[in-house]
Amino acid sequence: MSTLKRKKVSVIGGGFTGATTAFLLAQKELADVVLVDIPQMENPTKGKALDMLEASPVQGFDASITGTSNYEDTKDSDIVVITAGIARKPGMSRDDLVQTNQKIMKSVAQETAKYSPNALILVLTNPVDAMTYTVFKESGFPKNRVIGQSGVLDSARFRTFIAQELNLSVKDITGFVLGGHGDDMVPLVRYSYAGGIPLETLISKDRLEAIVERTRKGGGEIVNLLGNGSAYYAPAASLVEMVEAILKDQRRVLPSIAYLEGEYGYEGIYLGVPTILGANGIEKVIELELSADEKAALDKSAEAVRSVMAVLA
Amino acid sequence: MSTLKRKKVSVIGGGFTGATTAFLLAQKELADVVLVDIPQMENPTKGKALDMLEASPVQGFDASITGTSNYEDTKDSDIVVITAGIARKPGMSRDDLVQTNQKIMKSVAQETAKYSPNALILVLTNPVDAMTYTVFKESGFPKNRVIGQSGVLDSARFRTFIAQELNLSVKDITGFVLGGHGDDMVPLVRYSYAGGIPLETLISKDRLEAIVERTRKGGGEIVNLLGNGSAYYAPAASLVEMVEAILKDQRRVLPSIAYLEGEYGYEGIYLGVPTILGANGIEKVIELELSADEKAALDKSAEAVRSVMAVLA
Amino acid sequence: MSTLKRKKVSVIGGGFTGATTAFLLAQKELADVVLVDIPQMENPTKGKALDMLEASPVQGFDASITGTSNYEDTKDSDIVVITAGIARKPGMSRDDLVQTNQKIMKSVAQETAKYSPNALILVLTNPVDAMTYTVFKESGFPKNRVIGQSGVLDSARFRTFIAQELNLSVKDITGFVLGGHGDDMVPLVRYSYAGGIPLETLISKDRLEAIVERTRKGGGEIVNLLGNGSAYYAPAASLVEMVEAILKDQRRVLPSIAYLEGEYGYEGIYLGVPTILGANGIEKVIELELSADEKAALDKSAEAVRSVMAVLA
Amino acid sequence: MSTLKRKKVSVIGGGFTGATTAFLLAQKELADVVLVDIPQMENPTKGKALDMLEASPVQGFDASITGTSNYEDTKDSDIVVITAGIARKPGMSRDDLVQTNQKIMKSVAQETAKYSPNALILVLTNPVDAMTYTVFKESGFPKNRVIGQSGVLDSARFRTFIAQELNLSVKDITGFVLGGHGDDMVPLVRYSYAGGIPLETLISKDRLEAIVERTRKGGGEIVNLLGNGSAYYAPAASLVEMVEAILKDQRRVLPSIAYLEGEYGYEGIYLGVPTILGANGIEKVIELELSADEKAALDKSAEAVRSVMAVLA
Repeated sequence: MSTLKRKKVSVIGGGFTGATTAFLLAQKELADVVLVDIPQMENPTKGKALDMLEASPVQGFDASITGTSNYEDTKDSDIVVITAGIARKPGMSRDDLVQTNQKIMKSVAQETAKYSPNALILVLTNPVDAMTYTVFKESGFPKNRVIGQSGVLDSARFRTFIAQELNLSVKDITGFVLGGHGDDMVPLVRYSYAGGIPLETLISKDRLEAIVERTRKGGGEIVNLLGNGSAYYAPAASLVEMVEAILKDQRRVLPSIAYLEGEYGYEGIYLGVPTILGANGIEKVIELELSADEKAALDKSAEAVRSVMAVLA
Repeated sequence: MSTLKRKKVSVIGGGFTGATTAFLLAQKELADVVLVDIPQMENPTKGKALDMLEASPVQGFDASITGTSNYEDTKDSDIVVITAGIARKPGMSRDDLVQTNQKIMKSVAQETAKYSPNALILVLTNPVDAMTYTVFKESGFPKNRVIGQSGVLDSARFRTFIAQELNLSVKDITGFVLGGHGDDMVPLVRYSYAGGIPLETLISKDRLEAIVERTRKGGGEIVNLLGNGSAYYAPAASLVEMVEAILKDQRRVLPSIAYLEGEYGYEGIYLGVPTILGANGIEKVIELELSADEKAALDKSAEAVRSVMAVLA
Repeated sequence: MSTLKRKKVSVIGGGFTGATTAFLLAQKELADVVLVDIPQMENPTKGKALDMLEASPVQGFDASITGTSNYEDTKDSDIVVITAGIARKPGMSRDDLVQTNQKIMKSVAQETAKYSPNALILVLTNPVDAMTYTVFKESGFPKNRVIGQSGVLDSARFRTFIAQELNLSVKDITGFVLGGHGDDMVPLVRYSYAGGIPLETLISKDRLEAIVERTRKGGGEIVNLLGNGSAYYAPAASLVEMVEAILKDQRRVLPSIAYLEGEYGYEGIYLGVPTILGANGIEKVIELELSADEKAALDKSAEAVRSVMAVLA
Repeated sequence: MSTLKRKKVSVIGGGFTGATTAFLLAQKELADVVLVDIPQMENPTKGKALDMLEASPVQGFDASITGTSNYEDTKDSDIVVITAGIARKPGMSRDDLVQTNQKIMKSVAQETAKYSPNALILVLTNPVDAMTYTVFKESGFPKNRVIGQSGVLDSARFRTFIAQELNLSVKDITGFVLGGHGDDMVPLVRYSYAGGIPLETLISKDRLEAIVERTRKGGGEIVNLLGNGSAYYAPAASLVEMVEAILKDQRRVLPSIAYLEGEYGYEGIYLGVPTILGANGIEKVIELELSADEKAALDKSAEAVRSVMAVLA
């Protein structure tokens, strides 16, 4: 018998982000994909999966895409990506949001531990730092195998805005974002470049600050434009980048929400930091030297994460 | 001055199919993309376009994606893809559907003729045969430059089902569908193969008939599963296949809804037939020899198209 | 620990075909690649591997490429591709060629069995049918894991000529070739199509025969043009197609040189037949119904293979 | 009539670099490719082109590849890539090399001006700075349309070595090289990063110096290993990167050998500097602030270029 077998990724949550993630994974032939949602959404999830599969002869990819509400179908996944959860609705308190999504994370973590005990888990659900922590605790998985996504997306937005500002290819813009997702994120301008050239020499201080500010509010900008719903193309693409790095053991240098035990002076929290992603998930947390200002911003971000963790049941 | 310039494709209709089409086009770096919707939908359309663009640094593509409600932004498009239009709602008569979408087609055709007089037009809006005819008449464009999509999608579904039935790669399944979209489509089993092997020698007659029937109702299957909405991944992928064939002058053999002037014995209607797609759009209609049964089925399909055309205002 | 690990393919023979195969495999990120040649060629092999690797930042692929003359470096390969062997030189008898390459095959088979006992082996070395048989016998591997390449290349040539004849995209041409490589190959015209349309209805009998004849002599055409050396781009691409089908368990329908035990009425020889390629190598030999003429041609091809096998030491 | 047409790139010189460039261009469907060599090499050039074309059905690309010795076949090329020229042989003086290749450049420049007056020209032939200058003078083309390649290759090598040193993905390593090709190149370590992190914080000074030195001698390392011949995979990939940036108007930030008229304080020479590459070729020369050491190194590199230019007939 050959020891070759197809890879398998399960995506929990069949909304737009989950579905787009499933499609992009299959399109790259990275794995067979199982898209999971709650029983009430089983048929729509099957419908999306079938529609994607019907694109495969034309797009030229071989990968199965299955919609289901049964976790048994996720058995022996190599990676489980969690996009499930509710979005904050008008009138809902932050604590309600946190506790509702916490329940969902617990359930997904337990099902994953049961059916895919060797899997790596990627979490997108917000508030992502606290939700990744919840999945870490509930799964009982080692810290390297439970990872949150925010920095790849945040830096993608930053890079997009920089490319537009300079009228240059996005391929040549690198951007670096630390800390939590949202208003407390810490875009590190001095680690960001166009073709290797520090942005500070190419863009005025004012414009650069405006772009940093736009990046911080990047998710809200899309929410405001859409009027109903939130971004899903760029979030899905960001998840896929991380999945690919892990499945192919690429040892990419990508920002991840990682569990810190002393790194950067923090203990026992999940926070966005530069990491090396490979077959073992987080192969390493890279510790950068930070300026006093940067460290203060990161502290503030860590505080924000802790304040959400305090709400966890 | 170099004579090189970026290609431009405008996608009319910013719903799921239009947006997915825009994304897949940009992802392949086939062209800069302008996504157009009505003024009331301008912000959501801009939001989708921005979200897609923010995926570009991660997915590694260079293409602008713009959301707009202003046709001036489509100026000098190489190709205009029309996905705009309403879907039939419960209680709506077919005639109401036809006449509403006809109005939309008229408007889009006129705007396209005004701003992109050299463009090719691809139509997806249903009922697609009659809508393509409308765009042909209203644009005043030559027939080779006004093309409808249905057969690429129908055969993609057919190929998917065959691949599943035989547990084989979709890459090796070819399928052939003639006629109108929907119940009257004519899947030509004897021109369909797995790895070049005629399907009739690989699959029992009963199963093959069941698969043909499932293909005919492929759009409805997705509608029923989704509960709310219709397929968009496979339709978008099918449009992109046709756009790519034209932009790159590939001379692909693909089924198109083409204007017939005597081919297959029909005069003055748009019908799904095998064509060669290249830089001039429909470079040629390929005339196959049909069996009596096949011709009868195609006649029935042509009749269905004519009955819809009779409703056109 | 995650159970994910990078795939590994060793390519035996660092000549143009072997090197090009290594490059195309790495370029697709299908596996890490080890390129093996004899000790006297170790430095040039290392040089080619390094040159390819230096293309990786620009072409955007992550895969190691290593040149070596030490089989230990091939340890635990998922697939071993054999391109090693001498070409027939003026004045050399066929028997000398066969016996020299047989010795090389024996050595490679033993090294593979020693270092990669679970690998699948793909053989390109000529005369390929007999050489695949030799590797099968010497490795002791089951028949599904020892496979020869000729039909993918032969049909690629056939498809190229057809696409040129009809001025159509190669993407829409399928071609089918049975039997041995070389003058005795059996291009099955009636299983070959342009966009699903049988070639016989598109090309005159004379032209089709000329194309079949050109396909049969396709390798010689390149040899004659080059003046010194033989084809390597298309052979390498053909090997890569087979490797990809196996590594990704795609269940492609591709022609392989497979060991026959009764199929098509042959016993105990390797011959080119349609197969399903997946994670287990040859998952199945597909038996087509042949016309009397086709069977006679295949018999002749089998006889040619047997006559070479008779020369094996 | 549609205004769409296929792009065309002619590659002058059918040796390994030219042929590999042709293949990589066609594989990406960037353009139809014409591979040109001298009349004595016409058949081998045709043979290589045909072999590449025969890979197209398997690799799935639509592009014509033609071998020729007739410049008429290059008519209306969008880009002409020059790889033609002799390599320095033992016993040959540098001046002989320069003057021989100068003659070849003159001829190619004149043929290009005659048949493709709107083309952009990319030069790889060594000594590349002086040869690009020769083509500039002889073609009469504006400076933005005559460009030399060395920095993309040099930085690709630098990035490869850095990725190996750090065991990280090549995708996350950026490297920056100024000045001439060869011993006088100026790798700018402080503009080079792993995942945005300055290399100086990740690699010891000693190792970094060793890697810079290895990069400087990167071409020679391959020559020594091969024993006979020089690198062609990475040089070809580098040319393709530049061609793609131009054909798709990507506005990439890439190092080019550009004609300087005052930039960096130099007048009337071609030298390796950071540029923006788009549809007009060199859209802009980017002027970096250099340290005194870096400027001194660049001065030395410029001197080396001038000393070669002095040899031009």
